[in-house]
Amino acid sequence: MAAPAILLFTDFSHAGPYVGQVKAVLAAHAPEVPVIDLMHDAPTWDPMAAAYLLAALAPECRKGSVLLCVVDPGVGTDERKPTVVRADGRWFVGPGNGLFNVVAARAKTLSWWDITWSPERLSPTFHGRDLFAPVAAGLAVDRARPGTACVPAARLLPDWPDNYPRIIYVDHFGNAMTGIRGTSLDPSRSIEINGYEFSYARTFAAAPPARGFWYANSNGLVEIAINQGRATDRYELKPGDKVLLGEDDK
Amino acid sequence: MAAPAILLFTDFSHAGPYVGQVKAVLAAHAPEVPVIDLMHDAPTWDPMAAAYLLAALAPECRKGSVLLCVVDPGVGTDERKPTVVRADGRWFVGPGNGLFNVVAARAKTLSWWDITWSPERLSPTFHGRDLFAPVAAGLAVDRARPGTACVPAARLLPDWPDNYPRIIYVDHFGNAMTGIRGTSLDPSRSIEINGYEFSYARTFAAAPPARGFWYANSNGLVEIAINQGRATDRYELKPGDKVLLGEDDK
Amino acid sequence: MAAPAILLFTDFSHAGPYVGQVKAVLAAHAPEVPVIDLMHDAPTWDPMAAAYLLAALAPECRKGSVLLCVVDPGVGTDERKPTVVRADGRWFVGPGNGLFNVVAARAKTLSWWDITWSPERLSPTFHGRDLFAPVAAGLAVDRARPGTACVPAARLLPDWPDNYPRIIYVDHFGNAMTGIRGTSLDPSRSIEINGYEFSYARTFAAAPPARGFWYANSNGLVEIAINQGRATDRYELKPGDKVLLGEDDK
Repeated sequence: MAAPAILLFTDFSHAGPYVGQVKAVLAAHAPEVPVIDLMHDAPTWDPMAAAYLLAALAPECRKGSVLLCVVDPGVGTDERKPTVVRADGRWFVGPGNGLFNVVAARAKTLSWWDITWSPERLSPTFHGRDLFAPVAAGLAVDRARPGTACVPAARLLPDWPDNYPRIIYVDHFGNAMTGIRGTSLDPSRSIEINGYEFSYARTFAAAPPARGFWYANSNGLVEIAINQGRATDRYELKPGDKVLLGEDDK
Repeated sequence: MAAPAILLFTDFSHAGPYVGQVKAVLAAHAPEVPVIDLMHDAPTWDPMAAAYLLAALAPECRKGSVLLCVVDPGVGTDERKPTVVRADGRWFVGPGNGLFNVVAARAKTLSWWDITWSPERLSPTFHGRDLFAPVAAGLAVDRARPGTACVPAARLLPDWPDNYPRIIYVDHFGNAMTGIRGTSLDPSRSIEINGYEFSYARTFAAAPPARGFWYANSNGLVEIAINQGRATDRYELKPGDKVLLGEDDK
Repeated sequence: MAAPAILLFTDFSHAGPYVGQVKAVLAAHAPEVPVIDLMHDAPTWDPMAAAYLLAALAPECRKGSVLLCVVDPGVGTDERKPTVVRADGRWFVGPGNGLFNVVAARAKTLSWWDITWSPERLSPTFHGRDLFAPVAAGLAVDRARPGTACVPAARLLPDWPDNYPRIIYVDHFGNAMTGIRGTSLDPSRSIEINGYEFSYARTFAAAPPARGFWYANSNGLVEIAINQGRATDRYELKPGDKVLLGEDDK
């Protein structure tokens, strides 16, 4: 049975021909499988931040889905191995540079393959199109695993925290997502970023007017926001900023 | 018979995971129905401007289509009711905050439902994914109406003008759309915005070089443009700017 | 047999309702054919730069595909004829303003039609939706050619170079593509843009740190880049900048 969908998670942006060329390959190899743009502005050149974001989004994808993931500053080098991961019933295809570290660490069931198949033509700078897309299509159509099974523990980058106290993404509305899960933080606690302190509110409407607050966003991550305002502008929040978790940290 | 398409009209932008997560829900619940991004940069936090834009775009969508519409600053509050509208054979799903006011006011046939169904999990900040997407999918597949019929007049916000003399959208080419229909304005009339006066031209090529003009755009709205130039830059046009309709107004 | 895909190559950007309205027409007329956004930020108002970019991307599209191409500053004028081209087994639909000049000049097999069909309603400013989309859909479904065959030589704009020594596109990562094919340039040669000189590197990782270089990108074009940096910012590169091909030019 074919996968219910192939979901794309990349830092390609929607600009340029990159996403389109990946989709042309998928349409050729897996014409029956719907392709969904999950996001194309994953943290550029930052597989660690991207890994925490991916782990927050993955549970929303149906089991059996194939996630084609490309945040790959080391493309074309031997630094990272092309990788297939199966975690909690979902498939992940992309560079083995830490991008699947958090998904894997949180998985109840986990398998890992190094991709050994290589296409006839492999651009040294666009493995997303030439390598990962055909592999994802093959997985989506008939679960073809073009590689060698290996022990996940040998591939995981060690010493990553369970929650990542940094801003990992800022969105179009001016909200800033952190790598911290909302379930890990008590609503009584405030957090500090760039010298600003943020208290908890359950919803935008519950927050005091014109004041930044933190809440657990729709993907379970601690996020900084202002009701009908732009927290990123007001508090100069940007990806990479460190999050201090209240008095416990000081 | 399934709907010919589900069309998305939101202020989510293409950035971030929001559109992708809505599509993942639609693919799960209505896999056979094509999903089309009508636009994702509808006026943010401005349901009134968005309503006039939506009403201009809707007639281009095939009858039977489902339009999933989200411009929803009041998400998670009781200020607005989740709503299904059927107007001139098209379905509209989204927040009842005025967003469907213009479509409804212009409709020859009109029905209105308050959505009473609620999903098992409802994020207080992402009803687009958790509430409106499954409702839109259900409508698209088998016309399921998960709510209570009500009298449209009881839901319409009163006192909205037939045409809205404001800039409601500026596009990528630097053109500025107003909420005024071209059919309501005689080509002999000029209009004034920000102290600048604009005469009519039927096409870009018919306009005098390097001078702003107004014309009826491809969706029937009065739009300000410059041939091969950016009117928004030249005349500092932005959403919300007031449009004065020539001497009749003065 | 229907076309394997309709691919969109436009300067509409993803903002606004333009791409969505084109897709709604395609979905109505060719519901079985997948539609792929190849790119929507083709060089605005510059059919010549766009033509070299299109010619680099086209070979990646499957034979039999229909490419719906719109970079059309002369829309609504008699300056350019609506055009269908068949080149090396692929179909191209759009304005005859030079946009298909490079694809045609490089083609081994080539046919050319002036579109004579006209829709009932034709917006003077949106032929992409009203004219080219239905024609592309007809071609995709059953090879309908709604026009008059003509001699390609009578339609090609003459005197265009085989390679175009200009920057034709800058991407999201800050890389700058030229209209020069990598196969035409020996790796021993350096190139000069804006007074800066760039040597060859095969991959990003092979380049000296923090220094701009040129390489043949994944679509075969000479491109300027910096490993994990933004060449466009560092060297002020922008579309239209002239490329000097080393000492041979001096």
